[in-house]
Amino acid sequence: MFDIAIIGKGPAGISAAINARARNKSVIIFGKDSRKVFVTPSIWNYPGFKHITGPELIERLNDHLSSVSADCSPKQVSAVYAMGDFFSIQAEGDMFEAKKVILATGVDFKKTLEGEDTFLGRGVSYCATCDAPLYRGKVVAVVGYNQESIAETEFLSGVCSKVYFIPVGKVSGSFSGNVEIIENPPLKFVGKNKAEKLILKNLQEIEADGFFVLKDSYPLNALVPGLDTDGLHVKVNSNMETNIKGLYAAGDVTGKPYQIAKAVGEGQIAALHAAESL
Amino acid sequence: MFDIAIIGKGPAGISAAINARARNKSVIIFGKDSRKVFVTPSIWNYPGFKHITGPELIERLNDHLSSVSADCSPKQVSAVYAMGDFFSIQAEGDMFEAKKVILATGVDFKKTLEGEDTFLGRGVSYCATCDAPLYRGKVVAVVGYNQESIAETEFLSGVCSKVYFIPVGKVSGSFSGNVEIIENPPLKFVGKNKAEKLILKNLQEIEADGFFVLKDSYPLNALVPGLDTDGLHVKVNSNMETNIKGLYAAGDVTGKPYQIAKAVGEGQIAALHAAESL
Repeated sequence: MFDIAIIGKGPAGISAAINARARNKSVIIFGKDSRKVFVTPSIWNYPGFKHITGPELIERLNDHLSSVSADCSPKQVSAVYAMGDFFSIQAEGDMFEAKKVILATGVDFKKTLEGEDTFLGRGVSYCATCDAPLYRGKVVAVVGYNQESIAETEFLSGVCSKVYFIPVGKVSGSFSGNVEIIENPPLKFVGKNKAEKLILKNLQEIEADGFFVLKDSYPLNALVPGLDTDGLHVKVNSNMETNIKGLYAAGDVTGKPYQIAKAVGEGQIAALHAAESL
Repeated sequence: MFDIAIIGKGPAGISAAINARARNKSVIIFGKDSRKVFVTPSIWNYPGFKHITGPELIERLNDHLSSVSADCSPKQVSAVYAMGDFFSIQAEGDMFEAKKVILATGVDFKKTLEGEDTFLGRGVSYCATCDAPLYRGKVVAVVGYNQESIAETEFLSGVCSKVYFIPVGKVSGSFSGNVEIIENPPLKFVGKNKAEKLILKNLQEIEADGFFVLKDSYPLNALVPGLDTDGLHVKVNSNMETNIKGLYAAGDVTGKPYQIAKAVGEGQIAALHAAESL
């Protein structure tokens, strides 16, 4: 069991990891480099660096992170469950445990599909690795928002009898036998007690036993059941504590301004309070 | 009139200045380099710098600050007055005006002398330059906590008939004619309607017409009349706003943790909200 698990490897998450390690706590940090920072050509307002590019800052932050001996996992966390005095963290089919958790996921502006939250856990899943066994020999459909969804679809094709793949945005790939690519924007899930059909733009319907929505980040309420949110943001107090005891949040996910100095400051506050409470 | 005045040139103040300039607001920042950062031999937890010394970080921050064209004044601010839709700032006898103010003074652990706050403005003053004219040809006493108090005492000796100088801590200097140095720790001010005597450790009494207490930082309630505080800290909301409209605070002065990442994060939040409200 780790002392502190950090969900997200942007500036807030890395700051939290550095500060938790400074208090000698064991740390695991999940996620990949921040795409948002990576595509930023010029940063002028992170104190100490008159000018730095996004990729350069990521390199500095990763270099700093690797000097403090935190465990790093590139896996995507799909759920965090509060278990009383610890947390259980689901990441691409693996489970991890930690005494405290810091959410530093960034903020996600993508809209969910109509019915996505209603049917989540009832025919709609965010994790192919986790839920593929439920659909062995059956028909599933994948809405793929990221390039990683290609490999997940390939994996599902080995388990399920038929896989529909509906790419969103710039996602592209090729598949073997039983995957059918459908180039038509998804609109909504419909069904009675569970999701039964995915309706696409020109009213095309896809019937399946299960539906996977694969994207870089998950709605907060799906990621952490019971989390008190305000639109896209987690509600926190001045110690960066959420409404769930032992769960903290830092960075863009707590609200504006979406800026690096704010993120590293909040990552530090969250980590020091989490460490103090251990 | 400046858009934004920043009181304090530590990490929080410099971050606020950089971010206010990034929003193209006119900025004045008051104060000297942070002594607290200067004496820190090793900083391991400011993200982006695996290891940096305090003096090195100050150099990086000052270099960043000087690249953004903010006005810098080394003067010490002794009072900030809310004037409705702007602020009047008293600094060593000069007055400055700004539409918004950000307090980034750091936190001061020095106890005030007994009676110091009671008699402030009634025989006790924090600003020699400002109040010397009140005591022309009279007797004053100076309690000097910092090396700058030597020069202030010298200045008072030219205006007043007699000056008692009571150094506290490692302060030392030599004076011309009418200054008497008294090496005995000060305890309290006594008087009826105004301060009349300063009582020292062995019950030695110093009678004077006026008393100056000269130190690096002033109690928050003296610095900003009407400010809502909690012990040594200013109360702020999540936008770093104090109870006084247009007045923000950032860094150690808002509370623990007393750390650089937290300070730069709060400086940024304060500056961006102040800029937005202009």
